[in-house]
Amino acid sequence: MDDVTRPDTRYARGLKNLAAIDGAAGQRVIDALADIAPDFSRMVIEFPFGDVYDRPGLDLRSREIATIAALAALGHARPQLEVHLHAALNVGVSREEIVEILMQMAVYAGFPAALNALFAAKQVFSERDAEAARAGA
Amino acid sequence: MDDVTRPDTRYARGLKNLAAIDGAAGQRVIDALADIAPDFSRMVIEFPFGDVYDRPGLDLRSREIATIAALAALGHARPQLEVHLHAALNVGVSREEIVEILMQMAVYAGFPAALNALFAAKQVFSERDAEAARAGA
Amino acid sequence: MDDVTRPDTRYARGLKNLAAIDGAAGQRVIDALADIAPDFSRMVIEFPFGDVYDRPGLDLRSREIATIAALAALGHARPQLEVHLHAALNVGVSREEIVEILMQMAVYAGFPAALNALFAAKQVFSERDAEAARAGA
Amino acid sequence: MDDVTRPDTRYARGLKNLAAIDGAAGQRVIDALADIAPDFSRMVIEFPFGDVYDRPGLDLRSREIATIAALAALGHARPQLEVHLHAALNVGVSREEIVEILMQMAVYAGFPAALNALFAAKQVFSERDAEAARAGA
Amino acid sequence: MDDVTRPDTRYARGLKNLAAIDGAAGQRVIDALADIAPDFSRMVIEFPFGDVYDRPGLDLRSREIATIAALAALGHARPQLEVHLHAALNVGVSREEIVEILMQMAVYAGFPAALNALFAAKQVFSERDAEAARAGA
Amino acid sequence: MDDVTRPDTRYARGLKNLAAIDGAAGQRVIDALADIAPDFSRMVIEFPFGDVYDRPGLDLRSREIATIAALAALGHARPQLEVHLHAALNVGVSREEIVEILMQMAVYAGFPAALNALFAAKQVFSERDAEAARAGA
Repeated sequence: MDDVTRPDTRYARGLKNLAAIDGAAGQRVIDALADIAPDFSRMVIEFPFGDVYDRPGLDLRSREIATIAALAALGHARPQLEVHLHAALNVGVSREEIVEILMQMAVYAGFPAALNALFAAKQVFSERDAEAARAGA
Repeated sequence: MDDVTRPDTRYARGLKNLAAIDGAAGQRVIDALADIAPDFSRMVIEFPFGDVYDRPGLDLRSREIATIAALAALGHARPQLEVHLHAALNVGVSREEIVEILMQMAVYAGFPAALNALFAAKQVFSERDAEAARAGA
Repeated sequence: MDDVTRPDTRYARGLKNLAAIDGAAGQRVIDALADIAPDFSRMVIEFPFGDVYDRPGLDLRSREIATIAALAALGHARPQLEVHLHAALNVGVSREEIVEILMQMAVYAGFPAALNALFAAKQVFSERDAEAARAGA
Repeated sequence: MDDVTRPDTRYARGLKNLAAIDGAAGQRVIDALADIAPDFSRMVIEFPFGDVYDRPGLDLRSREIATIAALAALGHARPQLEVHLHAALNVGVSREEIVEILMQMAVYAGFPAALNALFAAKQVFSERDAEAARAGA
Repeated sequence: MDDVTRPDTRYARGLKNLAAIDGAAGQRVIDALADIAPDFSRMVIEFPFGDVYDRPGLDLRSREIATIAALAALGHARPQLEVHLHAALNVGVSREEIVEILMQMAVYAGFPAALNALFAAKQVFSERDAEAARAGA
Repeated sequence: MDDVTRPDTRYARGLKNLAAIDGAAGQRVIDALADIAPDFSRMVIEFPFGDVYDRPGLDLRSREIATIAALAALGHARPQLEVHLHAALNVGVSREEIVEILMQMAVYAGFPAALNALFAAKQVFSERDAEAARAGA
């Protein structure tokens, strides 16, 4: 097991990468798992974000395009799709591009999967607008 | 119905976009459907490639990243995954990037889906190496 | 792109076919997509309803049987299943037949998928009873 | 457990219904399971064919439309899709109608699922043509 | 059809086995189906619980491990997953073991499926804690 | 990154656990990935087998029951299902128990998924019989 206090561990790298993508959502998952499966929240930080997203061979923008496409196509992962819609926006995928990606999923996973993903995007965009309005008030 | 002889129709646009992505594979699908569902081969050209891939809001490289991620995650579309692995290479996604995208699918769709997609990529890469060797001989 | 003002376009045909199946639900989808993906609401009208449901080779009753079976089996498309349960009733599939189709899905997609689809049908039937009660009051 | 020698048991009813749909395929499944899971081949006869397909509320033609739609949409059941493509033809669904049903699945489960199902239909139609040619020779 | 008044019928066996696993949940399903598909609630008792869970070749603990793993992996059956999380606890799978099984699903069906199943477990555990608190008050 | 030469690393633990389950299959996967995604074969060893299967909260027999249930239910992972059918036998799940688990999947994922998994088991059992015959000759 890694020494979690060392800054170069998988956990530390995972937290750093997660912060760059969507730190608040990551923290919510850690908190929600704290009383039932704390080791799994650790694995979520270490493997996807410490190992996979940390790899140099693909930029974060491309990683998030792949992730929202996959989650939209799978159709059973609405909470995670919302997290990664935020993440995609945070790493530079535009709203217009997100809509294009989700529309394209109609071709590969059917219109219902695409529609439901677009409704998730509608909710995420509107949350961000509301937050921006609050911040700007 | 569009007039298929006009160069600006959905069908004509679809053929043009398909040619840019993977013309040979598209022709094989058209041929395979000719005796059973010719109207469907027409729809395959018109909707995904004439309508969706023709839209300006997302570059082809990003479209193919989304497509191979979704097909790998779905797990039941090996022939189409192979077509789009060729297509991704044709529009500038590198082999290394493809491997990263497919590895990342282990996070969202499980290790078996990622493994089977990587074996599809292994086959596609080796087909292209064999073709390059023949062409260079 | 079709000229949407001409009555023989894909969009016009789609609207007409959708009206015959479930006009109110179609309009709700168009409205819900208006601010985020208006082009996708256009595609939803044009491709499924203007192209596919418009084809003469299969009657609407059979088309809706196929659709509710598929949506029940997929298991991740509850909103679309509800729309097509209304549509099936509207084109002459009886409540008893719908229940039989959904029960049969236990064989192909498992008991949970069949159960969840039957609960969707229960809700749709009760909505229609409530509406009939209001109309008859 | 039913007494299998009585003609009115679930097993006897299942065999009769299966014979009406596709007797040869049913026998092949029974044979294939004989050495590993004979009780499961019994369940396959009893539950889907003795219980579900035996119910009066839905005609066999509609049942097979629902089944091939669901199997095409699920995408992971090629052998069973082939059996039920034969069955659909045997209970009066035409080749043209089958093609329409499978094309329609592009809307709900994506183009890859529809394409792969159409290729299964192409194979089944060609097997039947070959058999008809042998029978007519 | 079995004579439901005889204690040795499939229905009677199903009720008995269901009571051993999670009687209250079984009754809720029977009640919920009563007005729309009473025959299906009969089938749910007879086939899964009267036929399958009644078989001697596998203990109930192993059966419930298999069931919660499958339902977590499928990802579209949250109500049924909750029922079988209760059932697993009722036949002797510990909370810690349940968490391990659901964590392991990240490997085979992806992290979102595992996360969503763990949140279902969190809810079930907390329902049982609340019930125990009430009972102990 | 772990130091792979130290015996207590995730990779070393993964290899050890994999050897206990199905060492030959693990080596085949490592070899097959060597030229295309060597880092992924490393991840396959480290995360599923070094992290997850190494945890003390669940015995290996229960882990393999969960895994073959999930892979059978998912339906798109035949190669991995075969590996874990061998693994289940290697850690003490009997052939009869495996058949029961796969039959039970008909309830949760449908008869086609159960049938295809049973045919995978038939092939695995027959490979082992052939190997035993060779070893005993």
